[in-house]
Parts: sequence; structure tokens; C-alpha cells
Amino acid sequence: MRKISTKDIEYIAMGSTVLGTGGGGDPYIGKLLANEAINKYGDVSLIDAKELKDDALVVSIAAFGAPMILVEKLFSGEEFKRAFDMMEAYLGKKIEAIIPAEAGGLNGVIPFAVAARKKVPLVDADGMGRAFPRLEMTTFTLHGIPVSPITQADEKGNKNVYHTIDNTWGETLVGATTIQMGGSCAIGCYPMSGAQVKIAAVHGIVTYAETLGKAIIDAKAKNQNPIDSLIEKAAAIKLFTGKISNVTLKTEGRWNKGVCEISGLEKNIDSQMTLDFQNEFLMAKKDGKPVAITPDLIVLIDAENAQPITAESIQYGTRVIVLGMKANAQWRTPEGIELGGPKKFGYQENYITIEELNKNNRDVL
Amino acid sequence: MRKISTKDIEYIAMGSTVLGTGGGGDPYIGKLLANEAINKYGDVSLIDAKELKDDALVVSIAAFGAPMILVEKLFSGEEFKRAFDMMEAYLGKKIEAIIPAEAGGLNGVIPFAVAARKKVPLVDADGMGRAFPRLEMTTFTLHGIPVSPITQADEKGNKNVYHTIDNTWGETLVGATTIQMGGSCAIGCYPMSGAQVKIAAVHGIVTYAETLGKAIIDAKAKNQNPIDSLIEKAAAIKLFTGKISNVTLKTEGRWNKGVCEISGLEKNIDSQMTLDFQNEFLMAKKDGKPVAITPDLIVLIDAENAQPITAESIQYGTRVIVLGMKANAQWRTPEGIELGGPKKFGYQENYITIEELNKNNRDVL
Repeated sequence: MRKISTKDIEYIAMGSTVLGTGGGGDPYIGKLLANEAINKYGDVSLIDAKELKDDALVVSIAAFGAPMILVEKLFSGEEFKRAFDMMEAYLGKKIEAIIPAEAGGLNGVIPFAVAARKKVPLVDADGMGRAFPRLEMTTFTLHGIPVSPITQADEKGNKNVYHTIDNTWGETLVGATTIQMGGSCAIGCYPMSGAQVKIAAVHGIVTYAETLGKAIIDAKAKNQNPIDSLIEKAAAIKLFTGKISNVTLKTEGRWNKGVCEISGLEKNIDSQMTLDFQNEFLMAKKDGKPVAITPDLIVLIDAENAQPITAESIQYGTRVIVLGMKANAQWRTPEGIELGGPKKFGYQENYITIEELNKNNRDVL
Repeated sequence: MRKISTKDIEYIAMGSTVLGTGGGGDPYIGKLLANEAINKYGDVSLIDAKELKDDALVVSIAAFGAPMILVEKLFSGEEFKRAFDMMEAYLGKKIEAIIPAEAGGLNGVIPFAVAARKKVPLVDADGMGRAFPRLEMTTFTLHGIPVSPITQADEKGNKNVYHTIDNTWGETLVGATTIQMGGSCAIGCYPMSGAQVKIAAVHGIVTYAETLGKAIIDAKAKNQNPIDSLIEKAAAIKLFTGKISNVTLKTEGRWNKGVCEISGLEKNIDSQMTLDFQNEFLMAKKDGKPVAITPDLIVLIDAENAQPITAESIQYGTRVIVLGMKANAQWRTPEGIELGGPKKFGYQENYITIEELNKNNRDVL
């Protein structure tokens, strides 16, 4: 166990945005809420899953909605507290720890706001090791843990509880009401035991996000190259250097869908890259050929300031570097590929690891 | 208190379809389920609201969805039991009586199936005195009774509880998930006390439906004119006689929306009638001029067999008679007109009572 202060939140938010792989929401609001709560209620205890009692009740608290709307429509923080309180009331049991559902700019830090306020520890783990566009796309699902009961609260005061027959139905039903609520809400989900967390989570992800955030922020402070620093810490592959030449984006249901086109610069001067996204980047193609495929991580970085760019904030003309990172091993199993791989999103392509796709071009610039 | 047998259900279903004013669902499935449950579990006690203890928990159990889909997608009956059980579990209190939400072909009789199975009485009252297309359009709402908590169950096993900030949000959120569930589900809603039922319900509506059903069925058995018999018992106004010349219908969200056009026959030979519907008939115009406006009831009757016709089963060429009936007095207050009147459905026209609209043509044929 160690204490997480507002300074640590800065690192964790930055690193979570990297792991958000274009989705997971903008970290700005999450940081505001987490810092406000920590300043008011005190630092948050970050614990290792091993420190959990086997019968402890652990719950994910998350922002849910279209990232585009999550940026525009502010949360007060009350929604998350309500989702937490409803879960306790519904289960008739105290929540002993919070586990982030995903590592994303918003959902990597929002849980700290609730943990501070409710004075419960936060587990250094999540259910994705990255961000994914659908609620059922978690390692929890891979281990057969139900997403239900799901508690849902919006800023207006609507409060619902869902008991769905499977985790996909959780996404379907909560997604439908979230659109009606204006596109965003707070949810509590995946109530599970400490014993289940130990088996089913992606461990150490908060610390890992912090490490990646530090790599960028501290390198900048020392006038070192923050992108090189990130690449080293993340064991990332540099996939492309270029300039945003086009972006199409539409909000469809609770998803930002679109394609980002990048014209090559430097060594990539004669090449083009496309990044398809549905909240998260799912497929990177260089000159029409895949170089990174979901569930591996595709990270778009602003070349000027080393800031990871979320899909909804892509701007024409920005100089960017595209990085690829290996997905957590749980996503590379046949079950993981079925749940979070390219076929799930309607692609014809089979999943091929990023290492395999880039074995001959490890140093592409 | 008196016992309701399967023979009574036949009358009640017929009369409820009249009061369904084109919506409220087809009675066929409701009758099947009610009769099956009564045969298995025994007759249902129909009680007057006065017989309720003031602190008794009374709940509405209803089929929810687009009438078009309610006809095609069968219920097993389990959904209604689940909606009932969830409400008891959620409130931690036994339900002592069921009150129909609306008088419609389906929702006028479905509550009997649950009442038989759960061995609780059914209150001779409802929340509309007719059918309406939206969940919040009830006299319960007019009396400030919350629709929430709402329990929702589908045939697949999904089970949700909604706590909405107002009754309109109940319709919005439950409507959104119902579409995802395939267009229909069972709900429990408007949990209230016996004291509230006494004040807020439309009383005697089950008995009234039975009276109207008897007027049609018994007249037919005696070779008397069933439509004249219905007109007499319902104090209805004969608005039009004609033949269906066109019908447009689309299912939009959970609503059947469309217009039914009728070419005049007999005394109406040179006239046209249009009936607009959104599940229920909302506006009847003769030669472009309103002759019946929601919340007053517009009833379409097959001239050959005196069967009330629901909007989704209108067929070209059918000879029909259109009747108008006064809405319950609660709907004719300023609040009632605001909640269930023409402006609520986007019409420019102000509400004018059916008596006023037809004061010079009471005997129109």
C-alpha cells in the first residue's frame, strides 16, 4: 500500500491517456475531480490485489458514454458517489475497494475521486490494461465474471440497476439509456470478490500508467526527449511519423467512429497511415497494410509536446508519431482475441501480433 | 369483492379493447395468459379500491412495448411474475394487490394472469380509464405519484430496476431498453399505497370494461345489434360509417404511428375521415375538421362483427364504424389536458370536448 497524492494523479492521468489508445476519455475532467476529492478528503491508498481479503467486495466505478460527450458534458462527481452508494445498497454489503474498469485518460483517474471521497483503497489493477469501446470487453469477462448488477446514475438524478443475462447485454441496455441521458453517466459494475480480482484483473496497471506518465513528464522537465523516454518505458514500436491530413468523426450511439489519415514525414515521406477508431484506435495501416491490430495498443502522440491524442481531439495539420504497444497477455489468448480482436469489430483481417507485423521494421521513423 | 373466472375474462378483454382506443395491444395473448393462469391457480378476486387497507402496497404490472411487436413476440408469462417478484424484493415488502396501468386489450387482462399466479386481488380501477401511448400518461401522474421504482423483465432473463427523477424519464429510459430487448417487456411500476389508489385511480374500470364487452358479446349471442348495444352502454357518439381506404403505419421506437383513412358510406357517402394514431387514436377529423380529440376516446369498430380494431391490425377495405367516447373527468381538467391532450402530441388544435364538437351531429351515420 502507498498513498496517491495529486502530484501522482498528474502522472497517472498522462500514462492512462497513453494506455487509452485514443479512447478512454480526455483526462482533464477526471484529473479535476480526482484532485478536488484528494484535496478535500485526503490521499488515496493504492493497494496491490494481493492485499485484498479473498471475500472483500470490489467494484468498478467508471464514466460511461461517448468520449466526445464526456468532454463536453461535465460531471459533478456526485454521479460516481451515487453509483457507488447504489451498489452498496443493492448488494447490502460495504464496498472494500475500487478497481478501475479500464486504463484510459478519464477512467484511469475518475476512480481516485470516488476512492478519496468514500475512503476506500483503490486496487492497482484494471479490467483491460488499456481502454476498449465496450463494457463487456474486459479480462473480467474472460474469467466469467458478470458485469451485473450494474448501477447507473446521471447528473439529473436518475438511478438504475441492471441485472443482465450476460456482459454484452450490459453494454446494450446501459448504452441505450446512456444515450437518452444525454450521452454520459456514471456506472458501478463488475462487483467481485478479492479472490476474483487476484485472478481476473490486469495487475499493476496504475503503477504502469504512472511510469509511462513519468517518462513523458519528467523527460520534458529535464529537457530530454519525452517520446524516446516513453518508447523505452513502454517497449513501444515506433510505427509512423507524419502529419494529420484528414479525419472523419461521427458520434454514433455512444461511440466516436472515424478514420484518421496521416501523411508521412521524414523516413515515411512517401507513405500514408490510416488509423480506424471506435472510441479507441483499432487498426493502423501503413500504405494499406496492417501494422497494428486490436487488442494491441495504437497510440497517437503529438510530436511537438509528447501529449497522447484522443480520437475526438485529432486536429488537421498536427505533427504526430504513432506508437504500437503489446496488449496484455490475457488479450492474446484465443478467447481474448475473440472478445477484443479485429473480427469483433467487423474486420476481415486476422489478429497478428504487433511484433510479427513489424519484425522487419522495428526502427521505422 | 367478487371472483373473476375465464368467462368474465372474455368480456373484460373485449371491453378493454374498446377502451384501448386503437392501442393497448391485441387482447389475444393477454386472454391466453390470463385464462391459463386462472385455470391453473384459480379465479381472481376483483376488489373495489375501498376494500384496500390504506397502507397496502399496490403495484401496476403491464406489458410494455410497441403494440405491433406485442402481437408478434410472445410472452411466456414468466416476465410478469419476475417484474412482480423484483418489485417485492426491491421494496422489501409484499404486494397486496395489483392495479392495471391501463384499460387496453392486452394490459386490461395481463394483470389477471399475474394476480392469479401470485394469489393477490386485482383492484377494479386503472391509471387511465383508457389506453395511452406513454407510461407517464396516467391519473397517477396527475396526482403526483411516482412511476418509479420501475422493474423490468424480458423473456431472455434481463431484469432491471429504474429510479427516475420523474415519470417522463421513466418512459424515456424504459422505452430505450425495451427497444433493445426486441420491442417488448414486462414492467412493474407505480408502487403506491391503498390510500393513494383510492384518490388517484380511475375507479370501476374493470367492471366498466366487462359491461362494454357484455354489450357486444351478449347482443351478438341474442342476434341483437351489438354496435347499438355498445353505443348505449358507453354513451358513445357515432362519428362515422365508412370503409378503410388507406392506412400508413410505421413502428417508430416503441410506437406504431400512422394515419387511417376512411371513405364514407351511407349518410357519410360524400365524406372522408382520418384517424391519426400513435399506438392509440389521437385525433379524428371529418373532412379535415376535428370531431374527436385526445384524451377523449376514438374507437374503431368492424361493422361486420362489432370487433374493436387496434391500429396495427387495420386492413384496407374493412367496413367500419367510428365511435367517440368521453374521457374520464380527470383527463378533462387543465392538468389532464396538458398531460394527455392534443398539444402533448404536437397538434396545433386545442382540446374541445367530443360533446361540443358533435353538438349538432349527434346522430351522424
